[in-house]
Amino acid sequence: MKVAFVGLGKMGVAMAGQILAAGHELGVYNRTAAKGDDLVARGAARLASVADAAAFADVVVSMVENDKALAAVTLGEGGLVAGLARGAVHVAMGTHSIAQVKAITEAHEAAGQQFISAPVMGRPPVAEAGQLGIVAGGPADAVARVQPLFDAMGRRTYPAGPLPMSAAAAKIVNNFLLAAAIEALAEGFALGEKCGLPGDALLEILTDGLFAAPAYKIYGKMIVDKSYFDAPGFTATTGLKDVNLALGAGEALAVPLPTAGICRDRLLSAIANGHAGADWSVMAHEQARASGIA
Amino acid sequence: MKVAFVGLGKMGVAMAGQILAAGHELGVYNRTAAKGDDLVARGAARLASVADAAAFADVVVSMVENDKALAAVTLGEGGLVAGLARGAVHVAMGTHSIAQVKAITEAHEAAGQQFISAPVMGRPPVAEAGQLGIVAGGPADAVARVQPLFDAMGRRTYPAGPLPMSAAAAKIVNNFLLAAAIEALAEGFALGEKCGLPGDALLEILTDGLFAAPAYKIYGKMIVDKSYFDAPGFTATTGLKDVNLALGAGEALAVPLPTAGICRDRLLSAIANGHAGADWSVMAHEQARASGIA
Amino acid sequence: MKVAFVGLGKMGVAMAGQILAAGHELGVYNRTAAKGDDLVARGAARLASVADAAAFADVVVSMVENDKALAAVTLGEGGLVAGLARGAVHVAMGTHSIAQVKAITEAHEAAGQQFISAPVMGRPPVAEAGQLGIVAGGPADAVARVQPLFDAMGRRTYPAGPLPMSAAAAKIVNNFLLAAAIEALAEGFALGEKCGLPGDALLEILTDGLFAAPAYKIYGKMIVDKSYFDAPGFTATTGLKDVNLALGAGEALAVPLPTAGICRDRLLSAIANGHAGADWSVMAHEQARASGIA
Amino acid sequence: MKVAFVGLGKMGVAMAGQILAAGHELGVYNRTAAKGDDLVARGAARLASVADAAAFADVVVSMVENDKALAAVTLGEGGLVAGLARGAVHVAMGTHSIAQVKAITEAHEAAGQQFISAPVMGRPPVAEAGQLGIVAGGPADAVARVQPLFDAMGRRTYPAGPLPMSAAAAKIVNNFLLAAAIEALAEGFALGEKCGLPGDALLEILTDGLFAAPAYKIYGKMIVDKSYFDAPGFTATTGLKDVNLALGAGEALAVPLPTAGICRDRLLSAIANGHAGADWSVMAHEQARASGIA
Repeated sequence: MKVAFVGLGKMGVAMAGQILAAGHELGVYNRTAAKGDDLVARGAARLASVADAAAFADVVVSMVENDKALAAVTLGEGGLVAGLARGAVHVAMGTHSIAQVKAITEAHEAAGQQFISAPVMGRPPVAEAGQLGIVAGGPADAVARVQPLFDAMGRRTYPAGPLPMSAAAAKIVNNFLLAAAIEALAEGFALGEKCGLPGDALLEILTDGLFAAPAYKIYGKMIVDKSYFDAPGFTATTGLKDVNLALGAGEALAVPLPTAGICRDRLLSAIANGHAGADWSVMAHEQARASGIA
Repeated sequence: MKVAFVGLGKMGVAMAGQILAAGHELGVYNRTAAKGDDLVARGAARLASVADAAAFADVVVSMVENDKALAAVTLGEGGLVAGLARGAVHVAMGTHSIAQVKAITEAHEAAGQQFISAPVMGRPPVAEAGQLGIVAGGPADAVARVQPLFDAMGRRTYPAGPLPMSAAAAKIVNNFLLAAAIEALAEGFALGEKCGLPGDALLEILTDGLFAAPAYKIYGKMIVDKSYFDAPGFTATTGLKDVNLALGAGEALAVPLPTAGICRDRLLSAIANGHAGADWSVMAHEQARASGIA
Repeated sequence: MKVAFVGLGKMGVAMAGQILAAGHELGVYNRTAAKGDDLVARGAARLASVADAAAFADVVVSMVENDKALAAVTLGEGGLVAGLARGAVHVAMGTHSIAQVKAITEAHEAAGQQFISAPVMGRPPVAEAGQLGIVAGGPADAVARVQPLFDAMGRRTYPAGPLPMSAAAAKIVNNFLLAAAIEALAEGFALGEKCGLPGDALLEILTDGLFAAPAYKIYGKMIVDKSYFDAPGFTATTGLKDVNLALGAGEALAVPLPTAGICRDRLLSAIANGHAGADWSVMAHEQARASGIA
Repeated sequence: MKVAFVGLGKMGVAMAGQILAAGHELGVYNRTAAKGDDLVARGAARLASVADAAAFADVVVSMVENDKALAAVTLGEGGLVAGLARGAVHVAMGTHSIAQVKAITEAHEAAGQQFISAPVMGRPPVAEAGQLGIVAGGPADAVARVQPLFDAMGRRTYPAGPLPMSAAAAKIVNNFLLAAAIEALAEGFALGEKCGLPGDALLEILTDGLFAAPAYKIYGKMIVDKSYFDAPGFTATTGLKDVNLALGAGEALAVPLPTAGICRDRLLSAIANGHAGADWSVMAHEQARASGIA
């Protein structure tokens, strides 16, 4: 398949590399062109602009950092909506807000193009191994058409139905549940500690039973070890961005989300106290502080 | 080992049966004596009172429903504190409040007796199979002494350190985290539904990844199926009791627990709207109602 | 009127003094008898027990510190239920829980006696001036019968209807709204401070307009002056007790109270950080801390 | 003084009218020019554009609906920053976000102009009477310069210090406290109702004492009368916008605002259940629903 890839951050480079490795004809574009050097060395065509990307192929994948970057790539002069042929497909694989995904869905539909929101689960090493989880929301025929690309990039594709915003929602909910789990663990471990219960004992009890899942194992251990001040996987600031995606979605669709509100306040407290750059499990430090034990 | 068992509800009968099966010499007491008939038929001695239980053995296990029942068995005239010999051990295996466990710890210590709080994880069928998870908090020598009983009743014993209240806290935190997970799922599924995302698709995404744990699989499915009005495993009323144990512990030890507060309010709303007897995952129904989709 | 008064704390002494001053025939009882010396010197009869109080008059007023004290005075051997004649009236003027007021209402009804809950608004100096606000809940004929006493003690009587618990609720709601106002002020002043807005300017704006009320003027000033560490009017611990009365009422009647939950958590944080004895407006200090400015 | 006024909604027309009545030389601009007809008939000069307004006078007052409108008037080609002379003053009297006020402050400063944020308290009839409360934040000399205009429009000017965002914060906090008071009243009245306490009795008790303020009298009465479905003064949608201004300010400055989060969720629930257009005191209806009594 002939495909253009826009957005070559760490994730984008890894994902585009898998598409290339699967034998597809790939063109790449990034604002800082040098990020694409390795891909070009491996045979990808270098594209000079988003407009060139839209002209290069009838399938364009975008993997950009946030809503603003997605709007820049998609809307306005020189954007994908202006440049793509009728019937062409834009697959946005970044994590974007419901409001933005809705707006872009409408823009592409008005231009007779197809739009798929396909956010991914997994960090760069997972992307490099072609093992991402991919949630695909969009018209069934469009999803079927780009399935070979998903197969190249991912371990599994989860269908989210015909609406792009449904896929965006899945990713947003997944990340929100992670924030909620960290907050609950933070509360639980503070209570345990004040009851004299060793953190590792509590962690073992939880994760050997009802909570035998990566979310609890990974973040429970960070909380027990108080390692949130070490190299962060995901900072408090980034975590807040994710919680805000959930709150924004709740606002757009009139869904109250009290647990998300608590996570937001906890992260703001952490940030207010100088921990914006710590791992977002620093929520536990802030809870400990509020409990008089930090 | 010679042991008396007080409290023969469904859990107690199953647990006492495992002790008997393991070859220990067992005496049993229950207010409604008939509950012990099967155990007596299998060789247990029938005891006529708590005082008799205290006289029968130097190790007494209690498995009673709530704080009030535990106080009745332990404190006051004819109770275990009055009846047990110095150096004897009381193992309380019910789920009790931090305040009550602290009070009973002090009463036994003042009488020169040892007290272990050892709440269990698992429902009656798990107890019948001798596969409970047991969290043991109390003096190390006392725990070692009764370990053969734990081995008979459980799959695994988790040490919680020398304080009985630490073990109580572990159970309380475990149940609180479950409530928190249900609430977060309720919020997440409501958001997904309003974004057009099929519930089973979301459930698969979550439980195939970060949330691949029984808590999320079991309760996520109940929420997707809206099966909370079917045979409840654990009612809203019972769930509220558990959340209140967490809030009570937080109050006793000055630990704010905002997530527990949200769970409490959600359960109260469910109860206020007539669902006290539904499964506590009815929290999702109430969240859906607050989101305009129930 | 012939009346017995039980409970001679600061409030009780002041209130009983007003009854005496109005010319009623008064008997007084307190566990620590000396608290009644002044009243006896002014002509009151000293009573030796609650039973004597019940025998002394057909109207007994109680003003005791908490639920436990009220139960001790009312229920059990030697209590008012046992001692009062059929048709006699017990007026409980302390601040008590809904659950306790309901239980005592039922006990008096079963004994053919009348029960009025009549909590008061105002501190000791207000009581000494006979200027209390009194909320009266109970059978209309009983309230009419004791109105002369209310007239002696108070500035105004607010009728709360035929149920004693309705009056208890009024007092509980009043105090809860005060906690909620302090919490909201704490949040608002923290936000103002981080926006460079002088606290006294904000206070003037608020209390010159929509919030021109004692609650906002008094507590707003304490927050601006950060005077919560000075002589407390009402400690964090006492404030928490009041918030818990609201949460307990909400639980008894299935009313979710999220704002009360926030106040509870804020007070617990303050207590966890060593401020149990500060004025409960120390909630603002804790909010400031969570905002990185304390 | 020569002054241009931009934004002739109901509030703007009333405020500009007061400036005119005070004898100042006034030019007016509004996108829909007809809104200015009355003012022109009374002697104001009609201005054709924002650029013309900037050219007309060295003092420009803007009173526009939201952040987007303020940005349109101020930034970009033809805006006030581009058009005003160095040393000229822009007084923004709408209710705007902290982030927007900060951005516009910086833009005017970079252009050597002065900027004052001066939000108002009061609805159109108050504006028509020249009785607004005005909160002024900005350089002291600039505020002194435009004081005659404030005197014409308002009953009183409250100084908020040298930062425009401080004045914006004052208005945002004022409105947030109102939302918080409504939420607390909603909770309190639901509790009272379930305790059998008549709403008007509770209202009288509250507003005769600690809460003798317009916020409680006005909204308490609406809640008691359940009149939120009648002609709304301020809709749920508008109320949510105000609560979001507080939450946005909290996010910009890292201030957790749990009470604002609760208000937000309550308003979203009301909106989700079809009450977007009801008065925002419909929060009480939603609380009643969650309490099983609506």
